[in-house]
Amino acid sequence: MKPIEGGVTAPQGFRASGVRAGLKPSSEKEDCALVFSDEAATVSGMFTTNVMKSPPVHWNVEVCKSGYARGVFINSVNANAATGAQGKEDVRATAERLASTLGASYSEMCICSTGVIGVPLPMELIFNGIGDCASSLSESGSLAAATAIMTTDTVAKEFAAEITLEQGPVRLGAIAKGSGMISPNMATMICIITTDAAIAPELSQTLLRDAVRSSFNRISVDNDMSTSDTVLLFANGRSSVAVQESSADASTFAESLTAFCQEVAKALVKDGEGATKFVEIAVSGTVTDDGAERIARAIGNSQLCKTAFFGEDPNWGRFACAAGYAGVDFDPASLDIRLGGVQLTHGGLVADYAEDDAAAVMLQDEFRLELAVGNGSGKAVFWTSDLSHEYVSINADYRS
Amino acid sequence: MKPIEGGVTAPQGFRASGVRAGLKPSSEKEDCALVFSDEAATVSGMFTTNVMKSPPVHWNVEVCKSGYARGVFINSVNANAATGAQGKEDVRATAERLASTLGASYSEMCICSTGVIGVPLPMELIFNGIGDCASSLSESGSLAAATAIMTTDTVAKEFAAEITLEQGPVRLGAIAKGSGMISPNMATMICIITTDAAIAPELSQTLLRDAVRSSFNRISVDNDMSTSDTVLLFANGRSSVAVQESSADASTFAESLTAFCQEVAKALVKDGEGATKFVEIAVSGTVTDDGAERIARAIGNSQLCKTAFFGEDPNWGRFACAAGYAGVDFDPASLDIRLGGVQLTHGGLVADYAEDDAAAVMLQDEFRLELAVGNGSGKAVFWTSDLSHEYVSINADYRS
Repeated sequence: MKPIEGGVTAPQGFRASGVRAGLKPSSEKEDCALVFSDEAATVSGMFTTNVMKSPPVHWNVEVCKSGYARGVFINSVNANAATGAQGKEDVRATAERLASTLGASYSEMCICSTGVIGVPLPMELIFNGIGDCASSLSESGSLAAATAIMTTDTVAKEFAAEITLEQGPVRLGAIAKGSGMISPNMATMICIITTDAAIAPELSQTLLRDAVRSSFNRISVDNDMSTSDTVLLFANGRSSVAVQESSADASTFAESLTAFCQEVAKALVKDGEGATKFVEIAVSGTVTDDGAERIARAIGNSQLCKTAFFGEDPNWGRFACAAGYAGVDFDPASLDIRLGGVQLTHGGLVADYAEDDAAAVMLQDEFRLELAVGNGSGKAVFWTSDLSHEYVSINADYRS
Repeated sequence: MKPIEGGVTAPQGFRASGVRAGLKPSSEKEDCALVFSDEAATVSGMFTTNVMKSPPVHWNVEVCKSGYARGVFINSVNANAATGAQGKEDVRATAERLASTLGASYSEMCICSTGVIGVPLPMELIFNGIGDCASSLSESGSLAAATAIMTTDTVAKEFAAEITLEQGPVRLGAIAKGSGMISPNMATMICIITTDAAIAPELSQTLLRDAVRSSFNRISVDNDMSTSDTVLLFANGRSSVAVQESSADASTFAESLTAFCQEVAKALVKDGEGATKFVEIAVSGTVTDDGAERIARAIGNSQLCKTAFFGEDPNWGRFACAAGYAGVDFDPASLDIRLGGVQLTHGGLVADYAEDDAAAVMLQDEFRLELAVGNGSGKAVFWTSDLSHEYVSINADYRS
């Protein structure tokens, strides 16, 4: 897999746009985005499991059941969540307007909304946004789209790569937003992935599910699962390269898609609210991979570990403690902890290391924390940020 | 149940002391405490479920299996956790020294340690502490003991109450510490409860388990379960009032013990690290009490809800969102949220309320957040603090 330019429009046959519809009157920022395929694409999605799923999430679940779609419209500023029957009607009206404007069927359009909860969508502005997005669709519109979906993100996030399959090259593209807040609201993660490979709906769903499991489901900024989390994969087949189930190309594509999603997921963590550190937590030695993941997740979500990361304090007692309450049985006497290249504990006891060496690792913006908890073959990696004063400020002090 | 003075020594036949053994050379603070019963008491305990349980926790589990004990020695500054075989030997040596000094059996002495992890106990200082504690035991020593076990606690915590049973009055006493940090370390919660009622070991364990379930297990400061959490209940029978299983007095005692433990638990939250708010979260309408507890706990542990408490922001979208990811199914269209006396949502939609009224509730130091999620009979209450800049400072900036 080779990184290329172009974001979500790098794959052939996709166009995108981002416009300012004025959803936040005080801001000059773009707030509506459109990603559109010239022809029908297969679509698969992964969504939040929150009981309070927003109406757009429910809508996208139905579109993905059909397996085919043309594109996705995304607005920021307003999440259209906890909006009841009105919210559902607004999603339907948005889809119908998209369909008539773009010459597609309303059931082929996905819709994502991210922003404040509990406030009805301002539909006149949304309709204006749809018109402007449609008329400005272009093969170089990825960055505008990536910018329009930002909330408290500090950088627009677009990604693209080329994969060489046996049958020829295909491309992957993505835009994403995450760890963002808008006024009184919660972090929401949205990622739109495009590819010009041809992939049947069932295989696409399988590939996406597996890729998300070890990428977006392995990150945490604040352990608050949103009402709107959405990952969509559109495959329009324009490369004329088909990925068939159980083929060598399917394996290559699966590996590349996972690596690609990990790249996007890591970028979300690095731009996490108030984040000053990016920490890769690698756990091994458990009986199962699931056990390793639970331990890594416990550390990655621990407020005490995250404040230690922020404080640049190689406080291994906190890491050991969080591992201990992850709900996974292990022998404390076999706990080895390594921070960067420095071994902090051996056999559950403090190792012989220089405090300055450990502290030096944590002074870096990015570092790796490794825990081995036994002789099992289970392993997992998890990515997290620190818990900083800026995080508290973003989520406590600001209100608009 | 009537509040009285005297803390852990209010019940007859208990003495206590707190001394400075110099475990933290730079501090003038007391660091060793002893609570001792003039005669054998029944003992029951509730302990952390952390895999990394400290050697003192393992020791106390064994003492509680026997059902009888004379008292407990507690040191702060050093948790004697992740200390391996040396840690176990040190616990045993501590118990033996206590036994020979106090004229008791070593298997009748509980031992608690709270503080830094991974550092061997300084046994000479501990032995000095034992000698000084033993010689200064007194019926007015509760406050000194409560002071000696403090870490980042800002106030010493002692409690006492008298309960009128059919057979006569009995007393409850307690000292506790919690939400504390010492240099590179984690919050640990310790509570020692005394009573002069006579209670058989099995009944004592049942009563304590039930009381802890709806008190200490319903609070959170930072959702990090320590390696040392311990609650011990000593009952020495000196009141000559026996609490018999299945009696009316057993019910009265159980209710009082639960209310007493809730009082202690709430005091820990109010003195939580960096806490500026004390929030009671009451959830109702679930099918089971367990479901209600999970929803209340999700809100009480949510970083986004806790920063909203700190920011005095009546951000009900965050409360609804956390309820939604608690893993409990409910109908979003039946979600009613009340903050203090103000109804924020009705039937899952924003209610008609004045923003100023909601904000005024959150300006208070203490307030109540209520969620009704349906028509079920399940309900639960949970107590939490906010997530403040001071919390981040305490856990990131300070190191000694």
